[in-house]
Amino acid sequence: MNTRHTLRTHCARHLDTMRAEGRYRDFARLEKIADRFPLYRWHQPGGAPREITVWSANDYLGMGCHPAVRQAAAAAIAAYGAGAGGTRNISGTSPEHAGLEAELAAWHGKPAALLFGSGYVANQASLLALLSALPGMIVFSDAMNHASMIDGMRRSPAQRRIWRHNDLAHLEELLRAAGPAAPKVIALESVYSMEGDVAPLHAVCDLAERYDAITYLDEVHAVGLYGVTGAGIAERDGAASRIDIIQGTLAKGVGVVGGYIAGEAELVDYVRSTAGGLIFTTSMPPATAAAARASIRHIQQDTALRDRLAERAAALKAALDRAGLPRLPSESHIVPVPVPGAEACRRVARQLLERHGLYITPINYPTVPRGTERLRLCATPFHTDAMIGCLTAALRDVLPLAEAA
Amino acid sequence: MNTRHTLRTHCARHLDTMRAEGRYRDFARLEKIADRFPLYRWHQPGGAPREITVWSANDYLGMGCHPAVRQAAAAAIAAYGAGAGGTRNISGTSPEHAGLEAELAAWHGKPAALLFGSGYVANQASLLALLSALPGMIVFSDAMNHASMIDGMRRSPAQRRIWRHNDLAHLEELLRAAGPAAPKVIALESVYSMEGDVAPLHAVCDLAERYDAITYLDEVHAVGLYGVTGAGIAERDGAASRIDIIQGTLAKGVGVVGGYIAGEAELVDYVRSTAGGLIFTTSMPPATAAAARASIRHIQQDTALRDRLAERAAALKAALDRAGLPRLPSESHIVPVPVPGAEACRRVARQLLERHGLYITPINYPTVPRGTERLRLCATPFHTDAMIGCLTAALRDVLPLAEAA
Ligand SMILES: Cc1ncc(COP(=O)(O)O)c(C=O)c1O
Ligand SMILES: Cc1ncc(COP(=O)(O)O)c(C=O)c1O
Repeated sequence: MNTRHTLRTHCARHLDTMRAEGRYRDFARLEKIADRFPLYRWHQPGGAPREITVWSANDYLGMGCHPAVRQAAAAAIAAYGAGAGGTRNISGTSPEHAGLEAELAAWHGKPAALLFGSGYVANQASLLALLSALPGMIVFSDAMNHASMIDGMRRSPAQRRIWRHNDLAHLEELLRAAGPAAPKVIALESVYSMEGDVAPLHAVCDLAERYDAITYLDEVHAVGLYGVTGAGIAERDGAASRIDIIQGTLAKGVGVVGGYIAGEAELVDYVRSTAGGLIFTTSMPPATAAAARASIRHIQQDTALRDRLAERAAALKAALDRAGLPRLPSESHIVPVPVPGAEACRRVARQLLERHGLYITPINYPTVPRGTERLRLCATPFHTDAMIGCLTAALRDVLPLAEAA
Repeated sequence: MNTRHTLRTHCARHLDTMRAEGRYRDFARLEKIADRFPLYRWHQPGGAPREITVWSANDYLGMGCHPAVRQAAAAAIAAYGAGAGGTRNISGTSPEHAGLEAELAAWHGKPAALLFGSGYVANQASLLALLSALPGMIVFSDAMNHASMIDGMRRSPAQRRIWRHNDLAHLEELLRAAGPAAPKVIALESVYSMEGDVAPLHAVCDLAERYDAITYLDEVHAVGLYGVTGAGIAERDGAASRIDIIQGTLAKGVGVVGGYIAGEAELVDYVRSTAGGLIFTTSMPPATAAAARASIRHIQQDTALRDRLAERAAALKAALDRAGLPRLPSESHIVPVPVPGAEACRRVARQLLERHGLYITPINYPTVPRGTERLRLCATPFHTDAMIGCLTAALRDVLPLAEAA
C-alpha cells in the first residue's frame, strides 16, 4: 500500500467516472454586474468576457445589489473593518450581530434567534444539537429535505423516518407507527428549492399536535419572498406560531450571506451553548450583519418588490406554457424545466450559454435523483418581458423536445 | 411524553448546569474601531459604550482594519453587490473566487486550492471527504487538534488514533502498531491555538514517510504570520512540499472570513466534487474574496509587519515574566495565562473588563479540558508598550496568584 498513490488514483478514477457520466462540474466564472442585475459577465476560459443574462441566481430579489444594502455594507466595513476577528465568544460578537438576531427573532415572531455562517451550518449544527438533546428521539424528514438538514440528522443519534415528499398520509402513518413514548421532531422545508412546490404547513402542524411532535421548518427559499413582511411561508399562511424552529438564510432573498434559526428562548440558547459549528468558528463580519439588517428592513416594507416577483414568476410560467415548453408544476418563483439525463442537461445548458448568452445551471445528481435532471429557472423582479421572450425562444432552440417537435 | 415540554425542560436544565459550573457564555458586545485597532467599544448591558483594549482578537495582524483591505472590500461591493447569490456551481463562482484559489495555491506552493465558507467547514468537509475515500483508512490525530478537525474525522468511517500532543514517540508507536496495510493520514496543526506551541513539522513528515502516511496540516493560526511570505509554519520550516494538504483560514491573520485547503490537484478536485459542505451552500461573497486577495497581497510583501508581531509577542512575554505572572511556554504570538477553574477564570476576566477596560476571553470547557482554564492573550503589531504595561498591572491586580503574593 502506498497511501499517497492509492488515494490519488482513487480520486482521479472517481473524477473520471463523474466526467463519463456527465456529472463533473466545472464552475462557470460569472461576474455579477451589481448595477444591472440579472446581467453578468461570463469569463469564458481563454475568451473575452461576455455579457449574459443569469436565470439561476438565488439573489431572488436582487437585494444583494440594492443600493441601500451595498451602502450599509460599505459603511460598516469603513467603521468596523472587513472581519469579525474572533468567534462569537472570543471578541466576535458586535452590536450588529446582537441587533440582527433581535430583528430576525421579531421578524419571525419568535423570542430568540441565532446566527450561523451559512444556512447550511444553521441546519446541520442546530438539528444535530436538538436531536442529540433527548435520548430516543425520532425525526420525521420530508424525502426532499436539503442536504444540510440530512447532514445534521444523520450525525445525530436520532432515528430518521423519511416521509414521501409532501405526503401527509405517509407522515401520519409513520408518526402513528412510532408510538407515543418517543420525543418526535418533524423536519421540512416551506418552498422546495429543486421543485418549486410548497409544503402544507397547517396540515403538518395539525399532525405535529396530534402526535406530539415539534416542528423544524427550513424557510431558506421563502425568506424575504412570501408573507406580508416577507418573513416566509409560515407568515403568509399564518402558521409561524405553530412552528417551533424556523431556519433561514441571509444569502438568497436577503442577498448577503449567513444563516440562522429562530425559536423558543431555551431551545435557541441551548443550540448557542452546545453547537460546535457555532462555537468553534469565526463569527460573520459585522459588515455582513449590517448589510443583512439593511436588506431586511427594506424587504419588510417593500411589498411592491414581492408583488413584482410574484407577477414575474407568473409571467415566466405563462410564457413557458404558451411556448409549449415543459416545466414542473411550481407554486413559487422557482420554475424547473426537466431535461432528463446528466449529459443532455449539461449540453442544453452549454448551448444556452454559448449560443444565447443565457446562464441556467444544469441540476444533476447528487442535488436531484438521477433521471430527474433539470434546468432550474428563478424569476426575479428584474427579469423583463424581453428577457423572458429571449429565454423561451432559446429553450425552443436547444431543448431536445423542441428539436423533435 | 410531551415532546415540547420535555425538550424545553432538558435545555433549561442544561443551561442551568452550565451557569452553576461558571461555563455559561454571555457574548460580550464589542464594537471594533477599525481606525484604532485594537481599541473597541464595549456595549455593556444597560450602560454607555466604553472604550477598551482587546487582547483576545484573532485579527492577529490587524489586516481586517487595513485601509487596502477595507478599500478592496468596498470597491468589490460596489461592483458585484453584497452576496454571491448562488452556490459555487449555481452562478456563485466569480473571477474573484477563481483568482483567490489560484493565489492561495501558489502561496502554499501547491497545484490547487479550494475555498470554503470558514476554516471550520474547510476542516470538517475536507477531512470527511478524504477519510471516506478509501476503505479502512486510519487517521492519526494530535490530541489537541481543533474541534473542526475532530468533527470531520468522527463523521468519517476512518478509525481514529489519538497521539499525545506533539509527542513523536507516541505517534510512531501508533503508526507502527497500525501495520503496513491500512492507508494512513496524520492530522495536526502547526500553531496550537490554545497553547501557543508549534508542531515539529519535519519530524512528523519523517514519520509520515517512514510509515507511509499522508499529512494534513491546519495552519489556521499561522497563515499570514510565519514564513518569509507569511504562508505559515510549513513555509518557515521549509516543509510545505512535504505536507499533502495545508488547511487555512481567511478570518485570522488575513483578517476577513472564509477557509480553504491547498494540495495536489486530484485531491483538491475530489473534495470539490464530493464535499457536501461545499456543494450545498452559497459561496462566499465576491467582495470577501476580493478583500482576502488584497490582504494576502499585502501580507506577502510586508515582512516588517511580521517582524513587528514577533517583537510584540516577545515584549509581551518578557513583561509577563518580569511582573512574575504565570504563562504557558508559548512559542508563538499566542500567550495563555492559566487561571484554573471556570468560575475563577470568568471572574478574573470580568474584573479585567470592568475595572481595567481590558477584554480577554476566559477560555473554558469545551474549548480546553476542565481544570486548564486560561486567559488567552494574542499579541498584535498594534499593542503598544503602554498597553502591555496596563495589562501586566491589571493582571497583578486581579489574578488570585497576585492577590495571594
Ligand atoms: C433548502 C436549503 N436549505 C439550506 C441551504 C443552505 O443555505 P446557505 O446557502 O445559506 O448555506 C440551501 C441552499 O443553499 C437550501 O436549498
Ligand atoms: C485550529 C483551528 N482550526 C480551524 C478553526 C476554524 O477556522 P474559522 O474560524 O475560519 O472557521 C479554528 C478557529 O476558529 C482553529 O482554532
